[in-house]
Amino acid sequence: MIIQKTSSSRLESFDQENYSFGDHFIDHMIICEYDNGKWGEAKLMPYGPLSFSPANMTFNYGQACFEGMKAYKDKDGQVFLFRPRKNFERINKSAKRLAMPEVPEEVFMKGLKVLMDVDRAWIPYGEGRSLYIRPLIFATEEGLKARVAHKYMFAIVASPAKSYYTAPVSVKISDYYSRSASGGVGFAKAAGNYAAAFYPTQMAIEEGYDQIIWTDDATHEYFEESGTMNVFVRINDTIYTPPTSEKILDGITRDSFIQLAKHKGLDIRVEPVAVKTVLEAQKNGTLKEIWGVGTAVVTSVFKAFGYKDQRFELPVLADEDSYALTLKKALVDIQTNQAEDPFGWRELVERNILETV
Amino acid sequence: MIIQKTSSSRLESFDQENYSFGDHFIDHMIICEYDNGKWGEAKLMPYGPLSFSPANMTFNYGQACFEGMKAYKDKDGQVFLFRPRKNFERINKSAKRLAMPEVPEEVFMKGLKVLMDVDRAWIPYGEGRSLYIRPLIFATEEGLKARVAHKYMFAIVASPAKSYYTAPVSVKISDYYSRSASGGVGFAKAAGNYAAAFYPTQMAIEEGYDQIIWTDDATHEYFEESGTMNVFVRINDTIYTPPTSEKILDGITRDSFIQLAKHKGLDIRVEPVAVKTVLEAQKNGTLKEIWGVGTAVVTSVFKAFGYKDQRFELPVLADEDSYALTLKKALVDIQTNQAEDPFGWRELVERNILETV
Repeated sequence: MIIQKTSSSRLESFDQENYSFGDHFIDHMIICEYDNGKWGEAKLMPYGPLSFSPANMTFNYGQACFEGMKAYKDKDGQVFLFRPRKNFERINKSAKRLAMPEVPEEVFMKGLKVLMDVDRAWIPYGEGRSLYIRPLIFATEEGLKARVAHKYMFAIVASPAKSYYTAPVSVKISDYYSRSASGGVGFAKAAGNYAAAFYPTQMAIEEGYDQIIWTDDATHEYFEESGTMNVFVRINDTIYTPPTSEKILDGITRDSFIQLAKHKGLDIRVEPVAVKTVLEAQKNGTLKEIWGVGTAVVTSVFKAFGYKDQRFELPVLADEDSYALTLKKALVDIQTNQAEDPFGWRELVERNILETV
Repeated sequence: MIIQKTSSSRLESFDQENYSFGDHFIDHMIICEYDNGKWGEAKLMPYGPLSFSPANMTFNYGQACFEGMKAYKDKDGQVFLFRPRKNFERINKSAKRLAMPEVPEEVFMKGLKVLMDVDRAWIPYGEGRSLYIRPLIFATEEGLKARVAHKYMFAIVASPAKSYYTAPVSVKISDYYSRSASGGVGFAKAAGNYAAAFYPTQMAIEEGYDQIIWTDDATHEYFEESGTMNVFVRINDTIYTPPTSEKILDGITRDSFIQLAKHKGLDIRVEPVAVKTVLEAQKNGTLKEIWGVGTAVVTSVFKAFGYKDQRFELPVLADEDSYALTLKKALVDIQTNQAEDPFGWRELVERNILETV
């Protein structure tokens, strides 16, 4: 690994109380380039711009996929990653579907840990705070051939994140737009999936909602995801979430929620969630909660949902009665080393890793 | 318009007889940046790399769309564009669906003509030669928020193209993969659509085919596109092509073929093309031709197609008996000013445009 540290940290001038998510970057980044059929040596270097022409193949043909993950600092200053190997496995599933080279485990995991160790002073400590980490792979070849690129970059950049809190949101069940085709790339964290979702989301916002519950494109009768998150529905005391598929992202927070719910003895079922079932439960008063889960906010609680021209309010539950919030707290406590970790999900970032690289 | 010409043209060192498409770029490019809700002044500048961080939003969320178009030089050295306003209209349809700002007509059209005029020496003359032009819009904001970007770049780059000729290809009718969802972005020239198509295409190549005939994702019973082209089928003496939709690109070459076929009095029908109909026609001997059309190669003739485990050879027609090649020649003759243009499709690039900018 090539190590090129910055001579002037930006940490002193970073206002740790007053910033918005995703705008500020830690001092360093990891990059590793792929050319001639193989990955080169990974490099730690100062975060900043690189050179790309407008004929860069990602700008033209969109071969790009990413991961979202977090590092947490506990009261003793120890730094933990959360299930990082799941992100490693998933970025390569995405890469494969986009005909991009898979990144080696050594490059991904060592890059991640070296970056966390070198910039550990950047990792926020405190209620709801974390460092958001973005590994990504994208085509870097310059050219206008509509074919698989021959050059790529793997990069890891990271940005301090301040709070988990998000106000409860209203969601619109899609009866027209969709994010994913059968035989398509919905399960991948493909850059293009996000761009495709923005316009329908803007339309939902104009109707007074915050995001969309995506449904299957053929019939719009089944839930798929919500916004950029996986979705959970609670009817009476049973939790439902759709099974993952080629159309639904295999979310790591989703999987953790399922395991935590089982661990707590809750009745959780991974099965198709029909719009009709949710509407019926709403009518007969058995619909208790709908929520989304993802790395960025862990849980987004829904206060209302819309279907066609109707808007339905969801019950307001006390925090301790909410499965969404109970599971969220259990997960965050594990992530931040405030609770036992029976699943082995936390991964400590050793100090002075550079000496062993 | 800001004009920043290169002090050292690369044209002298460009081997005009020996190059491959999409690797070499003309001396200049056009760029125009969008920020604070508005487009800035367009700029002609030397083609080359610019600065983008790995946290660039296109690399992460894929907001990028493009156009493909060509300029042609006739025997007198006059330069023509082909239906450029159609590309202008379409890039903005793509931009709208991806929640990106639409580029003003003035920026697009004047940028295009100034670039063609300044670099007219780069435009190849001769059988099958042209300049391939790539206008594109992509997000340039640096940040990790999964939302619509606030900064964009419009760019025009261009690359000399040598020959229309492509050998007849074999295509696989998709019965699993798809490029487009109902309620999705298939009609847009969205970067992510191309990335999503590469892996299925690689699978088809492994089965001995060159590209895929995409079918609807819900049933795989109807033709949509072929590779990156629109598709035409000839049964007896009738030509069929699927109607455009949210899932099918509104191709300019497609539209030109339809108009030319009507002009020549051919029987052409824009209606859904069922896989079943094509298979039946193949069996009873009435299937004459299948071909793809697009800007890059104008026409790609198919020699065989595969469906499930079967491979079917298409008849070999004399050039003059082929509707595909007859229409291609008629179109190229118009594009290159070797025939009358009853449709008003050619647009002359005036000389010394800069003096009027």
